[in-house]
Amino acid sequence: MQTTHSIIRFGPLSEFRELLSPERVVFITSSALREKASEKLPMERESGRWIEVPDGESCKTFLVLESVYHALLNFDAGPDTVLVAIGGGSVSDLAGFAAHTWKRGIGLILVPTTLLAMIDASIGGKNAIDIGYAKNAVGSFHLPTSIICDVGWLPSLPEKDLASGMAEAIKHAVLDSEEHVQFFEQLAETRIPLAELGGKTFEDLIRRSQAVKLRYVNADLYDSHERHALNYGHTFGHAIELLTGLPHGFAVAAGMGAANTLAVSRGTLDPVTQGRIGSLLRHFGLPAGIQEAFGMAGRTMDRRALLELIRADKKRRGNYMDFVLPHGIGDVRIEAIPVDELAEVLQT
Amino acid sequence: MQTTHSIIRFGPLSEFRELLSPERVVFITSSALREKASEKLPMERESGRWIEVPDGESCKTFLVLESVYHALLNFDAGPDTVLVAIGGGSVSDLAGFAAHTWKRGIGLILVPTTLLAMIDASIGGKNAIDIGYAKNAVGSFHLPTSIICDVGWLPSLPEKDLASGMAEAIKHAVLDSEEHVQFFEQLAETRIPLAELGGKTFEDLIRRSQAVKLRYVNADLYDSHERHALNYGHTFGHAIELLTGLPHGFAVAAGMGAANTLAVSRGTLDPVTQGRIGSLLRHFGLPAGIQEAFGMAGRTMDRRALLELIRADKKRRGNYMDFVLPHGIGDVRIEAIPVDELAEVLQT
Repeated sequence: MQTTHSIIRFGPLSEFRELLSPERVVFITSSALREKASEKLPMERESGRWIEVPDGESCKTFLVLESVYHALLNFDAGPDTVLVAIGGGSVSDLAGFAAHTWKRGIGLILVPTTLLAMIDASIGGKNAIDIGYAKNAVGSFHLPTSIICDVGWLPSLPEKDLASGMAEAIKHAVLDSEEHVQFFEQLAETRIPLAELGGKTFEDLIRRSQAVKLRYVNADLYDSHERHALNYGHTFGHAIELLTGLPHGFAVAAGMGAANTLAVSRGTLDPVTQGRIGSLLRHFGLPAGIQEAFGMAGRTMDRRALLELIRADKKRRGNYMDFVLPHGIGDVRIEAIPVDELAEVLQT
Repeated sequence: MQTTHSIIRFGPLSEFRELLSPERVVFITSSALREKASEKLPMERESGRWIEVPDGESCKTFLVLESVYHALLNFDAGPDTVLVAIGGGSVSDLAGFAAHTWKRGIGLILVPTTLLAMIDASIGGKNAIDIGYAKNAVGSFHLPTSIICDVGWLPSLPEKDLASGMAEAIKHAVLDSEEHVQFFEQLAETRIPLAELGGKTFEDLIRRSQAVKLRYVNADLYDSHERHALNYGHTFGHAIELLTGLPHGFAVAAGMGAANTLAVSRGTLDPVTQGRIGSLLRHFGLPAGIQEAFGMAGRTMDRRALLELIRADKKRRGNYMDFVLPHGIGDVRIEAIPVDELAEVLQT
């Protein structure tokens, strides 16, 4: 069930007529995307079975999930039905959970519409919904049969959304190799605005990034160890995201910067590499440290609140926390770090 | 994740102190069983974290599931928490789903308290909740790490509950072997009331029955083909259950009788074997045919409603339905049967 891999396909959505046959699939998308999705699909405007959910994270509630189940029931969705999620990470999180649990598992096709979803959220089978204030408290693993990447969605995205995706792409490059980081450095040198990168460059960038994530996912689908390396930048990142309200990628970028600072102070990372990663993040409009993130959000940095959130992190075990520490480009390790050392980073 | 097998343990609940350590587990049980469960457990009356849910099928709603998630959140249940379900098939259906989805999967221990749950519901990892009128519409596969069978629960069960369990036990015997059926025939000859069978006999009966179910489950955990044989008696059974309100096992017994009638009329089953199975079912107070089931429920048989329910069965493909047809004891096959032939059985 979880042993086969998803097939990643590139091309305009309109070319996947067979895969998206209205008789077999139920589409799920956010209200904001419904119109555009209909235009892009290879079918009549009003045909097909559609489930419309609220935009963004607010679709990941128990109430919306229940409405999705009732819609599937009304559509008489059976074991052969395929759920097609068109949207960002929130829609795929919700749809993935619904597909995993409807009739004990139906097919899932993901159509990511953001850069972040194409390189990250759509890969690896994780899904989730929120319970009260607990983000992603409930979820499962459910690999999509296909992921359709149509880069035609990207140019019209707000610059901030693209930059947010770039943060995870740069994270993957640092996890990967010198060559991958240089690819981004060369991209930065061209000074082309993100929205104008063009389909070919986007496709190249996305394929490289997906390959890195897939390597970690395939080594450890159920996220028991190796896959944790993908959390580079995320321990500080989650806390920053909560306190600043910045988009996910921005908070992760700042978290990577903070992890790098810790790594330099521990002597595992050289300052030159730290500088290179920082410049790259800043070039794409991302913060490369905690102070920068709070400044960008127009807020004063709250050290106490940050520290409290970090202490509440599930990865903490007593005075230690499993932390993703960079030792160099292509060499990122999971290490137990004293929580006090994390606190010190907040002073810098 | 699904590759390891559950460990089935026999013995009084009080002997499993280590497995049920209150620091590590959250108990979930029905209101009716809460008191008795506390008495049987190897711990202080008021210690432990408990989730109480409504009795029977009414616990399998989306609303109750949400309350379980909130309780897990309040108990700060993390990836290392183990959910311990004490109850019949409804509680384990709900708890299995919650365990599968909380934090993308936590440990599960099942403590079945009915005969049916010990030999059937607790084995094989299937769980489910209902959506509106759709029984088991949402669910997953989640194998418990341990199943604790304490036969001490059984003598105090109502005779009807025990008989209901016997139906699935006899079903397993017919799927299994001549020797297994003779075991029940000898048991029937003793004329000992079910509640007085005694721990040793119950344990023997349960172990035999579990072994049969495990054989099918291990051959096909995700229920794609071989496991369907366990549906013997269930196509008619589900319809009978819905229309008569009889306990599950009673309806399945009647469904087995109806399947046997069909098999005899098709020439795959000899009437002597049909007679033996019928006698066995009747000995334990179970109906061995559709008419008998309706009579037992004090209702007039509604052929039209039965036929409609059978036509609505998910296993139907056009004019054919995958049906579990007995060819003899130890030889039960899955065959495509014309729906019209099923209708004819209702005339008999």
